[in-house]
Formats: sequence, structure tokens, C-alpha cells
Amino acid sequence: MTRCSLIVIGTELTRGIIADRHGQLVSKEMTHIGVHMSEIVAIPDDGTITNVLKALKKNNDIIIVTGGLGPTQDDMTRKCIADVFSSALVRDEKCFETLVRRVGEEKALGANEKQAYIPQGFTVMENPNGTAPGFYGSDEGTYVFALPGPPREMEPMFYSSVLPKVKELLDMKDGERYEYSSFITAEARLEELTERYAGIDWGTRFQDYKISLYASSDDRRNVEEAIEALAKEVGPYRLVEGDVTALDILIGTVREKGVMIAAAESCTGGLLSSLLTSKPGSSDYFLGSVVSYDPSVKKGVLGVRGETVERYGVVSDECALEMADGVRRITMADYSVSVTGVAGPDESEGKKVGTVSFGFSGKDRSSCSFTLHFTSWGRDSIRRKASVSAMLFLSAYIKGEDVIKMSKEWTNI
Amino acid sequence: MTRCSLIVIGTELTRGIIADRHGQLVSKEMTHIGVHMSEIVAIPDDGTITNVLKALKKNNDIIIVTGGLGPTQDDMTRKCIADVFSSALVRDEKCFETLVRRVGEEKALGANEKQAYIPQGFTVMENPNGTAPGFYGSDEGTYVFALPGPPREMEPMFYSSVLPKVKELLDMKDGERYEYSSFITAEARLEELTERYAGIDWGTRFQDYKISLYASSDDRRNVEEAIEALAKEVGPYRLVEGDVTALDILIGTVREKGVMIAAAESCTGGLLSSLLTSKPGSSDYFLGSVVSYDPSVKKGVLGVRGETVERYGVVSDECALEMADGVRRITMADYSVSVTGVAGPDESEGKKVGTVSFGFSGKDRSSCSFTLHFTSWGRDSIRRKASVSAMLFLSAYIKGEDVIKMSKEWTNI
Repeated sequence: MTRCSLIVIGTELTRGIIADRHGQLVSKEMTHIGVHMSEIVAIPDDGTITNVLKALKKNNDIIIVTGGLGPTQDDMTRKCIADVFSSALVRDEKCFETLVRRVGEEKALGANEKQAYIPQGFTVMENPNGTAPGFYGSDEGTYVFALPGPPREMEPMFYSSVLPKVKELLDMKDGERYEYSSFITAEARLEELTERYAGIDWGTRFQDYKISLYASSDDRRNVEEAIEALAKEVGPYRLVEGDVTALDILIGTVREKGVMIAAAESCTGGLLSSLLTSKPGSSDYFLGSVVSYDPSVKKGVLGVRGETVERYGVVSDECALEMADGVRRITMADYSVSVTGVAGPDESEGKKVGTVSFGFSGKDRSSCSFTLHFTSWGRDSIRRKASVSAMLFLSAYIKGEDVIKMSKEWTNI
Repeated sequence: MTRCSLIVIGTELTRGIIADRHGQLVSKEMTHIGVHMSEIVAIPDDGTITNVLKALKKNNDIIIVTGGLGPTQDDMTRKCIADVFSSALVRDEKCFETLVRRVGEEKALGANEKQAYIPQGFTVMENPNGTAPGFYGSDEGTYVFALPGPPREMEPMFYSSVLPKVKELLDMKDGERYEYSSFITAEARLEELTERYAGIDWGTRFQDYKISLYASSDDRRNVEEAIEALAKEVGPYRLVEGDVTALDILIGTVREKGVMIAAAESCTGGLLSSLLTSKPGSSDYFLGSVVSYDPSVKKGVLGVRGETVERYGVVSDECALEMADGVRRITMADYSVSVTGVAGPDESEGKKVGTVSFGFSGKDRSSCSFTLHFTSWGRDSIRRKASVSAMLFLSAYIKGEDVIKMSKEWTNI
């Protein structure tokens, strides 16, 4: 069993100013490749790393250290690592040149110069998002990896340099790493789905409105085939290449077509609008919305007919259709989407929690609507899934796709 | 210098399934009372605690251990602590009685019985939210505190039992602890404001839509006077007793008065509505809203006059007033609020980022509006501050208060 420990250095952590973000990421990825995480230690920036490092070196094959690589006096990580790993700090000329290019020669020779020093015999890991490079090396059978502390510097370096090297040490073939974004499918379910594809190393990372899916393999074709099969299984728009949100996809479409959109919300209660306006420049494509929470507002403001509500209920294809038409008419938008459903905790109109109807209306298309049944993980989860779905379907609708057919192909929601 | 370390036990942490939540809380509170946090260590539930505990015992005055107190086989924390702190596990009869009351005698004698065992000579800390009590004791000058892992059990016990005991050890008088909720004021600013009041131990905790403020003192009158002065300084509704959100305050008012509300949003883009509908049962008081992002929707749907927009702009008392009246008219709500402002990143109509106008309309009151200027910490921060303000002012307006006068008394926004 390969044993790994993580040392997170930063007085801002031990003073409770910020919470650690690296522990979970490193643990998850190490566990995923079969490495046992024995300790995650956070310590201040005061040189105590020396003793912690010495103690962990005895019982671990791999030690990852984050933080303390900056130019300030407190940042003594590189010196402590060199001491414990029986090496001397030397200026790495390639690192120094990079530093000069980044900050200029004058600044590079000041406090910053320290950042170009690494333990002799160690290998440099490039840092595309900051001035301090990382490095790794070994002593007495233990490897140590040093990375800068800020997550936007640490995370890409962890994936591009540390993980591949650890896999190499474990004699695991590290193929190319491909990133995808997945929507609506629960993370645990996505992991189950991916497990069936052999020869690929999968990883997932949950965010509020998407799940990142990572695939590593030395056989690109294998990954492409697996992704194609997965995408086909979950349905259109649910699995896309790269680091992309549903909002990004919709914005891409509306900007390309130069159209203005509007929304009519019920169960999402403003969340969809809040997402649509979350990025600067949203007034370029978003006109507005009506949150018609009460049936009286659906009727009074959006013009949904009383007969429709009485006969089919407010969670129905019929009501969603009239809501979408109504909001497009009153906002004079080119395209509109509506969402009306049961967010819970209780069922409504005899419809289960997770039942959500979507409607679409457009200047050059006939309106349409359909109903989906989401697995419920609580009110917030339903509201999020419904909002993300609304954005993906609206994008498809604007592109002229058959969204009713598309909705029938969605599985694992 | 008193040195403290925290050991967080849980294989779900070292496998990256969840992120640690205790490290920041404990570090912040310990730092606040002058204790130096030397290490925060996360380890799996596999008995390695023994070695970690032994090592930390040498260099620390206080060790806090969370997790591993449950009834399952993996939960060996109590045994390891007893060993390292030279004690034997004995059944605590009072704990056992409590356990019997909670789970019944049959279950209490099964795997659960373990939870009533504590190291001999140690003191029990009650757990109001779970079955496993905590305990503390000392050996060779080092105190150890053991707490259950789930945050909803650990956090109250940390505040009610651990912190007072640590203060006692430090010979600090631990007065009563009072909790308040503060809105809109930035955390750093709130800390500056509280620092001026001597004889009180202050603590703050940031959440997305409020900041919790804790005051400890053995002189209740002193705390009351300080809070009164602080509340007066920041203005009405900004600092309230207990753990309360702005939404709680508004819901309290609308439920008490039995009224229906509506909203007209612009810069908040749906966030206010999303908050108003975030709790189950929101249809009891919320009718709906219009997110009139584009001026055309303000005019076309809400009936804001073109002349108003042209002469005063969309971020103005005049536009806010007509928005509030408009949305109340079309939704037939008893009361309504409107928000229109500059969320940024760029200024608009020559108005700075953070300029936000609010309007209010009610069935039995004359409409009114005013403009606030929030310090900008970015687009999200402005949207959050504007939404929280809208809820607090709407609550006051429904109660018949003079919200214009109130708005003039708000400082530190």
C-alpha cells in the first residue's frame, strides 16, 4: 500500500481566516488511484514544517506540501524541505529566466529571487498561473512534492504534474487527461455509469450547477468512444467537452444568434433568472422574467387561461406552454422558456416532488412543452436541476432542435 | 503561549468524500482567545490516532479530537484516548441512563452501550443533538477534549463546553455568551466596530446573507449597552438578537399580518425572489415577481413611464417607486418592494457601482422610495446586500415604519 500525506502550510489556516481547500481534492484523487491518505496536516508558516516533515517522512512514500513558496520571509518551505531531504538550495537558471520574464530583472533580483531556488537534484514543476514554481524529489525512498498555496495555482499543477508523476511511481500508465462537463446526473450515478468503461481512469468533481468529469487514458480513441456512449446514454446536451456550464452554452447560442430571451418561472422561484443575470453583460441577451409563483399571477400577468389551470393544473404541459407564450408576449422577447413544477417537500396537485414542466416559445417556431420527472434530493436540488435543464433546452430550442424528442432521450435525471 | 492542536477523525475526510468543517471554526475561536494552533490533523478512522495523539501530547497543552465516538467498530477514539491518557474506560451511569432514555434499554445494551463508556476520571460533556456524549480530561499537563464528528453535534458542544473550559484553564473569566445576527456590514468592519467595546469578548462568523456576532462577558449589562450602541450606530434592523436571517424577519412580519407580497427586481436579477421562495411554504405569502432587467420590461410589464426613465434613469427613486406600484398592481399583492441599481462591474447612467434604489408600495400606505450607496465588493456582493436590504425594509414598511427615515440612519453599508 502506497502511503501519502498532505501538509498544508498557512497561518491563515491555523488562525481560522480561511478554510483548507486542498485536503479534499488531494484525498479524493489519491484514493481514486489506490493511494492511502494517512494524514492531512495544516500548520502555520513558522518553520514547524521541519518536524512535521521529518515525522511523516518515516511513514510515507509520498508527501505533498502546499504553500510557503512565496517571496516573503515567512515562506520557508523550500529551505525546510531541502534540509529534511538532505539537499542544498541552488538557483535554477531556467526558473530564474522565467522569473525575469515575468517580473523584470530588477524585481527578480530582490525578494523574488528566492523563488528560483530549488533543492539540488530536484525537478521543477512549472506554474502557469503564478511566479513560484513547484518542485519534487526524493530521499530515502520518500518523494516530496512542493506546490504553491493559492488554489488557482495549486490545482492545475497538481493535475498536470503531481498526479502523472505519482502514477508513474505506481507504475500506472498515465495517458492524456480529458475534461468534460456533465449536467443533471447525480455524481454517484455518473461514477456508476463511467465504471463500466475499462482502460480509462475516471474522476469527477461536483460543483453547484455541473459536475466535471475527467478521463485519463493513453488511448484517446478509447476515451472518445466511452464519452460518445455515455453522452448517448444520458441524452443530448448532458455531457460536453471542456469546462463549461449550462449558462455558458446558452450564452454562446444567444450571442451567436443575436437574440433576446425571457423566462417565466414558478417552482424555480427566481433562481433561473438569478443565474441568467449572474454574469456581467447579461443585459445584452436577457430582457426579464416573471416569477409567477401564485396561480393568480400566472393568469393575471402571463395570461394563462383559468380553464387551463383548472383542467390540467399549474404543473402541466398546457400551463407551461401558455406561460412561455405569455412571457414572450409581454416582454417582446425573441425566445422564452417557462418552468413550473413541484419542488417539494410536499407533492402538489397529486404530482410527485420532482415533476417539472417546461415550455418554449419563439418568434420563428411553434411553441412546445413537455414534462420531466427528476429524482428528488430535496427542494434546492430540484430547483437547481430545473434551472439547468431550462437553460440547456432553451439553447437547443433557439438552435431549432426538436426539444420534445430531446427530452425523451434524457435518462438518469 | 498555550498551544492547541485539533485532530479530525474520519475516513470520509481522507478519502476526499467530504471536506473538513471543524478546522476553521476551532482555529478561529482559539486564535481569538490567544491560543496558538500548532496543528490541524485529519486522519482515517483506523486507529492511527494513537500515534498522532502521543506525538501531539508532547508539544501541546490542549488537544481537541472530533469524530470516532459513534457505536460502530471503526469508532475507536475513546479507547485510544484512554490508552494515551493513562486511563481505563468505564461505563458512566449517568450517560448510560441518558442513552436508555434516548434509544430504549434494548438498543442501549447493544453496540450503542460503547457510547456510555468514558475514560475514568474524565468529565462528560453533554450532547444535546446526538447519542454520543463528549468528554475531557488531562494527563501530564495536557488536556484532551473529545467531541462527536457531525457539525450539528460538534459545534454547539464546542461553544457550550470546550471553549468555556479552555478559558477557565487560561484563567480567563468566561461570562455568558450572547448571539446576535448582523446584516449588510462587512465582517472586517463589524470587527473594527466591536473592538471599541472593552470587557467583552467578541466573535464573528460570516454566512452568505448574514454575519453572526457573538459577545461573551460576565457583565450582561455591559453587553446590552454595547449592542445597543452598535445597533444605533449601524441603524435600525441591522443588528438583532439570536440566530436570525433577514428572510426570517420578513416571514415573521408577513405571517403575523397575514399579507401577500410581491417584488420587482432589476439589478438583483431574480436573487431576491429566489430567496423569498427558498423555504417550504413560501406560497403562503409570496405571490410572484417581475425581473424587469431591460427598461422595456419596466415600461411594458410594470408600467413605468417612459418619461420617468428618460428624465431620472432606471436607477432612481422615481423609477423604483413606479416599479413597486406597478408590480403590486399587476400581482394584486398587499405589499411590494422594488430594487433597481448598479451591480457592476461598470457604472451605469453615470451612477457608481453599488448605487441601489428601493421602492415600496402598500394597500394602506402611500408608496415611497429612496437610494442607498453600498460599498462594492463585486457584483455578487451588491446583489446580496440589495436583496437582504429589500427584505429588511419591506418588513419595516409592512409594520408601518418610516423607511425613508430608517434608510438615512443606515451606516457602514
